[in-house]
Amino acid sequence: MKVLVVNCGSSSVKYTLFDMDGEKKIAWGIIECIGLPEAYYKRQTSGTEEKKDSVKVTNHTEAVELIIKNLLDKKTGSINNIDEISVVGHRIVHGGEKFSKPVLVTPEVKEGLKSCFAIAPLHNPAHYAGIVAVEKMLPGIPSVLVFDTAFHQTMPDYAYMYALPYELYEKDHIRKYGFHGTSHNYVSQRAAAMLGKPIGELNLITAHLGNGSSITAIQKGKVIDTSMGFTPLPGVVMGTRCGDIDPAIIAYLMDEYPQYRDGATINNLMNKKSGLYGISGLSGDMRTIVKAVAAGNKKAKLAFDMLTYSVKKYISSYFGLLNGIDALVFTAGIGENSPSVREKICENLSALGIEMDVAENNEPSGEERVVSTAKSKVKILIIPTNEELMIARESKKVLSNG
Amino acid sequence: MKVLVVNCGSSSVKYTLFDMDGEKKIAWGIIECIGLPEAYYKRQTSGTEEKKDSVKVTNHTEAVELIIKNLLDKKTGSINNIDEISVVGHRIVHGGEKFSKPVLVTPEVKEGLKSCFAIAPLHNPAHYAGIVAVEKMLPGIPSVLVFDTAFHQTMPDYAYMYALPYELYEKDHIRKYGFHGTSHNYVSQRAAAMLGKPIGELNLITAHLGNGSSITAIQKGKVIDTSMGFTPLPGVVMGTRCGDIDPAIIAYLMDEYPQYRDGATINNLMNKKSGLYGISGLSGDMRTIVKAVAAGNKKAKLAFDMLTYSVKKYISSYFGLLNGIDALVFTAGIGENSPSVREKICENLSALGIEMDVAENNEPSGEERVVSTAKSKVKILIIPTNEELMIARESKKVLSNG
Repeated sequence: MKVLVVNCGSSSVKYTLFDMDGEKKIAWGIIECIGLPEAYYKRQTSGTEEKKDSVKVTNHTEAVELIIKNLLDKKTGSINNIDEISVVGHRIVHGGEKFSKPVLVTPEVKEGLKSCFAIAPLHNPAHYAGIVAVEKMLPGIPSVLVFDTAFHQTMPDYAYMYALPYELYEKDHIRKYGFHGTSHNYVSQRAAAMLGKPIGELNLITAHLGNGSSITAIQKGKVIDTSMGFTPLPGVVMGTRCGDIDPAIIAYLMDEYPQYRDGATINNLMNKKSGLYGISGLSGDMRTIVKAVAAGNKKAKLAFDMLTYSVKKYISSYFGLLNGIDALVFTAGIGENSPSVREKICENLSALGIEMDVAENNEPSGEERVVSTAKSKVKILIIPTNEELMIARESKKVLSNG
Repeated sequence: MKVLVVNCGSSSVKYTLFDMDGEKKIAWGIIECIGLPEAYYKRQTSGTEEKKDSVKVTNHTEAVELIIKNLLDKKTGSINNIDEISVVGHRIVHGGEKFSKPVLVTPEVKEGLKSCFAIAPLHNPAHYAGIVAVEKMLPGIPSVLVFDTAFHQTMPDYAYMYALPYELYEKDHIRKYGFHGTSHNYVSQRAAAMLGKPIGELNLITAHLGNGSSITAIQKGKVIDTSMGFTPLPGVVMGTRCGDIDPAIIAYLMDEYPQYRDGATINNLMNKKSGLYGISGLSGDMRTIVKAVAAGNKKAKLAFDMLTYSVKKYISSYFGLLNGIDALVFTAGIGENSPSVREKICENLSALGIEMDVAENNEPSGEERVVSTAKSKVKILIIPTNEELMIARESKKVLSNG
């Protein structure tokens, strides 16, 4: 059984074709800079090297068309016929409160997705365009939507509500949604497998640390809280996002500077000019920051300390909310690949029963592994995330459940 | 030795005259609605009943004048001569980064206070007016400023910085300051006395829960983090303040509603229309909320759950940052007087070694006391705060240190 996973960004289409027998990747790639004078098409199939072409692609329909044609190519393609694809799984950033699990695409579902445009204006219209393009290019092949927000829909009201006037929730749907749900879901399931226990018997904290980062508290398999919010801005310090700040700072900036009396400018400041980049003035990339710290750069050191401190705050907080945990999981770009970040976060947390095996933590490895000491009450796990595979699995499941 | 403590709000002057031999209150009162057609003067002296008059007072100078005259009154007054007052202690909300401890008023100090007007526009100009009025009415009597922010100035940079562009710190002094410092300082000292240990050997979390609320992590007597920020808005849910929210909500509101493209309107929304009041639609007063919960009001229940949950999140977070604590202290209006709030906050925190003696917690008492079980690793303390006395003590100390 083959599943095609599609992830449409505002100017990109990313895809992976899986053979679910053995969960193997057959073909994958991305078309970037859609709508710009020059777009790029990077693609690869299992056992071959990456190819990269400059292409002319003006919209998502053309991008999907190019990808499907390529998968069907007599010489270099991976399938002979579109019917070999059993289901297409779409990654969707925002499902609002409408979608608490993956769903088969129907006209009603498409309408439901449209109603979430206002709360995800950058992502959901692109996803919608991708769904329509796939329907056109793969007629008769079912599509499944897998939402970044869905895994977090188990949060209780006192965790997802903001203490703003209640009508902002009723009228504008302003509440905490949370993001990276597919990743948190995937690594929590892998953690249960590594610990050899049913997920329903475990309390976990999953730390997805990448360009965007979020921390999630998972009680017996269900999310009870997560660090992102109405948007993917709040929570921990990120590459270029500020994470939590005093919201009255925005009111101050509006009073002092006329240019900030505009949502887009404020969003740009908080999402693109802040985080590691804003503090260090150097880069939003943790690898650059870590090198600069080693070279004695003080602002890079401050940025490093702030990011790790903000993660530590959430881990500690969620430890209490869960009244103790079985494991702490690190995943995503920084979580998987930055030993110094993990070490700093876990420093001086013995009161929570968190004790890192520093030598093991420093071993380079792309594999799932345990990096806590033998006597650490809490297991510290590194688990490479795999959102594409999770989307493929969820899509297959929805299809077989009818 | 007598110390006069003065607290000038934007339209009020509150005062307490202490006899520092025995730390006894001699006389105290407040003039409210200064500048309005009718102002009110409530006052009391030790051993007598409260008096309340309607008065005409157009500014802080007139208010201070009225108070001093009253203290000197031949029949009902408390002093014969202004020289009996050794020092005047002023409560100051915001000392910025300039003031990390109480200071004697000099022309330079007054200039320094003026430079903090921009970051505390509602409070510091009123404080300044009060200082000038006291200097006029009590010539030759020294004044000491005691800052709400000073106790928090020990926070490390990675705790007080926001991950916004660094120049917003350099140019606009945007950072976390923290508030209620005098109260956190007072109760932490009382906690050390109750535990019979030097404060330098203790890790404490102090929860000041009133109309405004803040939680502080204190390591060996020094603040390492606190829940309020650049302003007294963020942190836990309060009576009418929202506490922490996704700051991108503000950008969303600005995009959707033209009336929110204005700092004052946004501040009014977050500071006056939110919190318990915003969620319940009923009241920002916890006593009203608790009654409504008992009567089955669902939104009051949600407001109660949100406030207690937000406090629990901070306590858990600070427990980890301190790598364990000796005691958790509740103080201020709600912290001292609401057993159900304290109970809900401490529920299911056994993993932190926090176990409440529920029966003891329910006992009505205005006294300092322990409400944890005998086997609770962390002591839970209720300590009535006394900011006026702390200001008097600090003022006396500054005076005797020259």
